[in-house]
Formats: sequence, C-alpha cells, structure tokens
Amino acid sequence: MIGVAVMGCGVVGCGVVQMLIKNKEEVRRAAGRDVAPLYMLDIRDIAAPEGVKLTRDVNDILADSAVNVVVETIGGVGAAYDFTKRALESGRHVVTSNKELVAARGDELIKLAAGRGVSYLYEASVGGGIPVLHPITRCLRANRLTGVDGIVNGSTNYLLTQMRDQGVSFPAALGEAKRLGYVEADPAADVEGWDARRKLAILANACFGSRFDDDAKIPTAGISGVTEADMEAAAAFGGAVKLITHARLSDSGDSWTGWVHPAFVPAAHPLYGVNDVFNAIIAHGNFVGDVMFYGRGAGREPTASAVVGDIVEIARGVSPAAVPPAGEAPAFSAADAPIRRLARAASDARESLERLGCPVRPCGDGLAFLAPALTRAEFSAACQELNGLSEPLYVLE
Amino acid sequence: MIGVAVMGCGVVGCGVVQMLIKNKEEVRRAAGRDVAPLYMLDIRDIAAPEGVKLTRDVNDILADSAVNVVVETIGGVGAAYDFTKRALESGRHVVTSNKELVAARGDELIKLAAGRGVSYLYEASVGGGIPVLHPITRCLRANRLTGVDGIVNGSTNYLLTQMRDQGVSFPAALGEAKRLGYVEADPAADVEGWDARRKLAILANACFGSRFDDDAKIPTAGISGVTEADMEAAAAFGGAVKLITHARLSDSGDSWTGWVHPAFVPAAHPLYGVNDVFNAIIAHGNFVGDVMFYGRGAGREPTASAVVGDIVEIARGVSPAAVPPAGEAPAFSAADAPIRRLARAASDARESLERLGCPVRPCGDGLAFLAPALTRAEFSAACQELNGLSEPLYVLE
Repeated sequence: MIGVAVMGCGVVGCGVVQMLIKNKEEVRRAAGRDVAPLYMLDIRDIAAPEGVKLTRDVNDILADSAVNVVVETIGGVGAAYDFTKRALESGRHVVTSNKELVAARGDELIKLAAGRGVSYLYEASVGGGIPVLHPITRCLRANRLTGVDGIVNGSTNYLLTQMRDQGVSFPAALGEAKRLGYVEADPAADVEGWDARRKLAILANACFGSRFDDDAKIPTAGISGVTEADMEAAAAFGGAVKLITHARLSDSGDSWTGWVHPAFVPAAHPLYGVNDVFNAIIAHGNFVGDVMFYGRGAGREPTASAVVGDIVEIARGVSPAAVPPAGEAPAFSAADAPIRRLARAASDARESLERLGCPVRPCGDGLAFLAPALTRAEFSAACQELNGLSEPLYVLE
Repeated sequence: MIGVAVMGCGVVGCGVVQMLIKNKEEVRRAAGRDVAPLYMLDIRDIAAPEGVKLTRDVNDILADSAVNVVVETIGGVGAAYDFTKRALESGRHVVTSNKELVAARGDELIKLAAGRGVSYLYEASVGGGIPVLHPITRCLRANRLTGVDGIVNGSTNYLLTQMRDQGVSFPAALGEAKRLGYVEADPAADVEGWDARRKLAILANACFGSRFDDDAKIPTAGISGVTEADMEAAAAFGGAVKLITHARLSDSGDSWTGWVHPAFVPAAHPLYGVNDVFNAIIAHGNFVGDVMFYGRGAGREPTASAVVGDIVEIARGVSPAAVPPAGEAPAFSAADAPIRRLARAASDARESLERLGCPVRPCGDGLAFLAPALTRAEFSAACQELNGLSEPLYVLE
C-alpha cells in the first residue's frame, strides 16, 4: 500500500483526497496497489473523510512510517519549502502543484530528492490537469527540443476572453471576475504575469534543462496595460490578444531566451482557439515538429488529476529523474532579440508606415500596424517619428 | 547498448534510422544507454547508413543476439504479423506504427508479448508524432475515462480543408492531392474512413480497455460523399466539416459505442481549428475533464519521433502493460443512439422545420437545418415529410 499525506488542504489538496477516495479502484489499477490518504495537514479547521487523520503538526506525518508520499499543496515558499525539505530528507517522495516553490527552489529540491533516492514531481505545477511535463520529459525526450510557447494562466486568459467577447475594459472585466470568484482576491501574481513566468521557467527546464531559478530573469509584462484599443487592433488583423509565454533555445544550445508578454495571436495559430480558463502548451522538437497539449489549466479536479498521476508514477516505481542533464544548464540570456510588434498610431502616420512596408489597418480613430522584426531600441527609434503610440503587443509567429 | 532492427524501410522505417543517427546524443541521454540501428530489412533495394546491415531475411535479425528491439514498419497484416509474432516469440520487444496490424491482432500480440516478458508498443499508430497513447494510459489512468473524440486521419483532414478554403469539390481536391503526393495512390483506407476506424479502436482500447478487434464493428462513413453544399451548410452555422472519430463508454462501463463520420464542428469546439494534415485527440476523464493532444499526425519525422519514444521507454525498462484490464473488456454496442444532425432541405421546408423547433439557415438554393437528437429511424421518419434531403452530417457537441 502507498500511504499519502496531504499538506495544505485548500482547493487542490482537498481535490486530491477526494480523487483518491472517489476513484479508488481506478487509482489501484493504475498504481498496481492500493493508494490511501492517511493524513490531511492544515492550520485551519477542516473536515476529513473517514479514515483520514487531521493534524496541524508536520511531525505527526513524518513520524508515521506508513506515509510514503507527501503531497504539498500549501503554496508559497515558506512552510511549503520547509516541509518539502523535511519530507524529502526523511525519505518521502513529494508531489506538488506549487509552481512558486518549484520555480524558486526546484534546482535544490530535485537534487535533494535524487540524493535520497526519492522523487520530487510537479506535473500539476504547469497546465493544471493537462499532461505536459511528463510527455515532454519522457515521450519527446529523444527529440532536440528547441522551443516552447503557451497560454499557462487561466485567470488572465479568462479576462482577455471577456474583454474581447463582452467588449469591456480590463478593470471592468477584473471587477466582474472577482465578484464571481474567478480570480484571487489579490490577483497580482496572475495579472502581472508572475505566475506565467514561473510556469515558463518550469517548461524551459523540461525542454532545455535550464535552471528553474532563471524564473527571476525572464522579462515579463502582464495584462493590466491591455486596452480595448489593443483588442480592436488585434481584431483588425484577424487575431486575438493572449498572454503568451515564449522560450527558445539558442542554436548552440548554450543559452535560452524567453518572455511573458501580451501578444497578437493570428487566427491560424493553434493558440488562437484557446479561450476562457483553458491552457495550452506547444513544444517544438526537431523530429516531432510542434505538439500542443490543451485542457483545463486550473481548478480542483483537473489539478488533482495531475497530482494523483504523479503519485501513480511513484507507486509504479517509474524513475523520478527521466533524463540526466546534458552538461551545463543553458544560461538565460535576455538579449534584445528582434521581434515583430502590433502597435497603434495616429491616422496621419499611414503614409510613413506604408513607405516602411508595414501592413496597416484602420483601428478606432487611428491605425493599427504590424511592425517588422526589430529590437526594442530599433523599434523605439523608428517610432519617434510617429504620434500616439501605445505599448505594442508582441506578435506570435 | 540497445540494438535495433528496422523491418520495412519505407518512409517511417527510414525516418527511425535517421533519427537514431541524427539524434544519437539525445536518444542516449533519454534512454540512459546507447541505442544503435543494426539492421534494415526490406525486399526492395535500399541504401543503408554506415554500420547498418541490409538484409531481406528476417532470420538474420532473429539470429543476432545483439538485437533487442525490432521496429515493424512494414504495414498491413501479412508479413508484418508473421514477423512480429516471430520477433516477440524470440524475446524481442516490438515497436510499431502499423495501426492495421494493431487493430486486427493487437489483443493477441499484446498477450503474446506479456507472456514472453517483452513489450509490444504502438504509440506511433495513432496521431503520428503526438504523444497520446502514453499520456492516456499513464498520466490520465487514475481518471475514469469515459470518452474520446478526434481527427486522426491527416489526408482526409487536408482534403476537407482544401474543399473549404479553395471551394473545390471532393474529386477535384483528391486529384490535386494525388498529384502532390499528399494521399496514397489507392486512397480508399483514408477516404472511406477505415484508417480512422482502426485508430478509434486503438484509442478506445487505451481509454476503456475494449478489444482492438472491435474495429470491424464501428459504423463508419468516409468523406467521399461530402459535397460543396455540406461545406456551405456548415459555414451557414459558423462551423466546419471534419471527419470525426467518436467513442463513449456506457455509464455502467459494460459497453462502449462509437462511430467514424463526417461531422459539423462548431467554431467554439477545440477541434474546429485543427486543419490541413494536423491531427488532434480529446480524451475525457472524470477528474481532468477534456484534454486535447494536437500535432502532426503523419509524416516521416513525426512518426519516427513516436517510434523512437517507445524504444526509449523500453531501454529505460518502463513496464509495457501500464494497466491490467479492469475485468471483462466492455463490449462494443452499435445501438442506435440519438444524435443531432446537420442536414439540407428545399426552401419550402422552412415552415415545417421551424414548427419542429429546428434552427434553419439559408444555404445555396435551399436550407440547412440542425435537427434535434434523434435515432436514425426517428430522423428518417421525420424527414419523409421534407424534400431534397441529403446525407446529413453528425453534429459534434
């Protein structure tokens, strides 16, 4: 039997216990043995199903040799980090949905786990229920993986979808989403792109073997600056505005670069149809080409599915670290790579823009135009001649 | 070292050898050891890279103890079946992209492999390079999987995309695709839906544990009857025509049903944006909800990626049969389940249709309408009052 302790019984933690009980038979067959929830740890008063012990003391869990797997769904990097470290040091496998901790301390925790012969698995930290880290690190691993793009934050994707479909401003969409409980009371991590940035660091590690703590270096812009005029500009060119996470490995493999930024996604792009709270991740391999994984990127039940999937892997004895690093981790480089941008200008700029070969469309009182691939400095220089410029959207090719 | 023999050196077989050579380092790291192509078997004159032996005799391969894994990319159920059986009996793992053989003989070959302690793996048989069978049978296995829908034949999806975008008839699109080499000289298996039907049987096995040879029982209609008027009708309701594979497990889990049929896919459905030669598969689990896997469903390099992914699994010693069957395999039932249909009628039928509550749109000289969910018999009866009815499209909900 595999004994499971769930630390942090909010939405996801309770979902894990619920799935282990409701899908007991499916889990048993998948794992090849019984998997039982033994403990729920929380500082709040919570209710536990029959047979599951409630505790506020992590020592109760660590002292019980029937616990093989600890699920960390506390969130953040405080107690979550401390308890994860202690669980790994005590020889317990740890499974988590905590992207903040994985991005901040993943390098250290995976090394610690490997040293103790246990696993630190985190499929649920990116894309909620969507199997994405596992397929990338296992099924596609014989490819040279050179790129990953995604929509990895459901809350912002929902807000952008509402802004487009309902024609409302960002503050209005945010207010309504708060009222409905679709975003956190403090939505900064979602809205400012920090959550997406953490997930991008985790995806880049899966694809390129880069360091998780490159997270802090990734240039990031959230969606609070996205306006109705941006929506109009995207629509004028037949596409949509999405918060995109983007990463590429250099040709030499020595470095990688990436960003999180609101982007124009053309209608023909596979990410165009990813709306509401859905997430999708596209990985690029040198043989497989582009592969996309799509589904619900958050929520109790989908995220529980990913956590329990990791528990099943552990129960089946599948080795934790699928692939040893290729050598040195590629370094993050925020070099100012040229990128196309969708921007707006006053209508008297039409002639200049057309002279520069930029596609131009009417947009509200002014114009929208697609700039060629330029560095930030080149773009700024080119734009000094134009009036009324807004913060441009990146263009997803 | 893992020694590989490739039997059948057409497009996919040669791609596998090419990937093992070109991505040697990636494969070695993924597999944890060297993986070397040792033999290529073909009855045609082919060229082999240095260090790879050419043979026309399967006995050369079976006599060489350095061969651990046999790749079967012969196709069909003749020599492919015979050689696969002999390879498994000799204690070799077999990896294949041959959906025809898996659908026809998978039940027997998997049992044979299990009896010899080896694997019979076939990720490449569905969705080309897209990791789909592995994520379903491993990552999602703790879910109760109750449905699967997909676009699994790239040739027909390409033809339907051409018909829509170029406004050409099915024969014209087929002629052009033949000229460009995008479809087989004998396209019947694609066009009549048999290839999609085989893949649906394989997907249903992965999701529900049903028998592979249920293949033969699945009601199937291809795309040769799809007309420009069908395209217009779909466009009138804001969607597209796709060849859809569809399967559902019954509530009791004792039986499953499914079909392969041209279907109306509304614009909001995730399969709507799957165009050209791309494939996508959506699985439904009771916790994860809908998850979609998308990518190139055919072609040398993507399919090679899936074959090599299976070789890597074998090299890493991951157990072949992820999940023992739940008991009896659910039986296929072609019970005439009610389904909505998109059909056409003469314009004088508008009043009757609106009286029945059917949404109606103008379409060419006549009308297109969405019928409510009816059995085939009910639909036929209801339609006897109407003139000019065409073969209807199923509606994908």
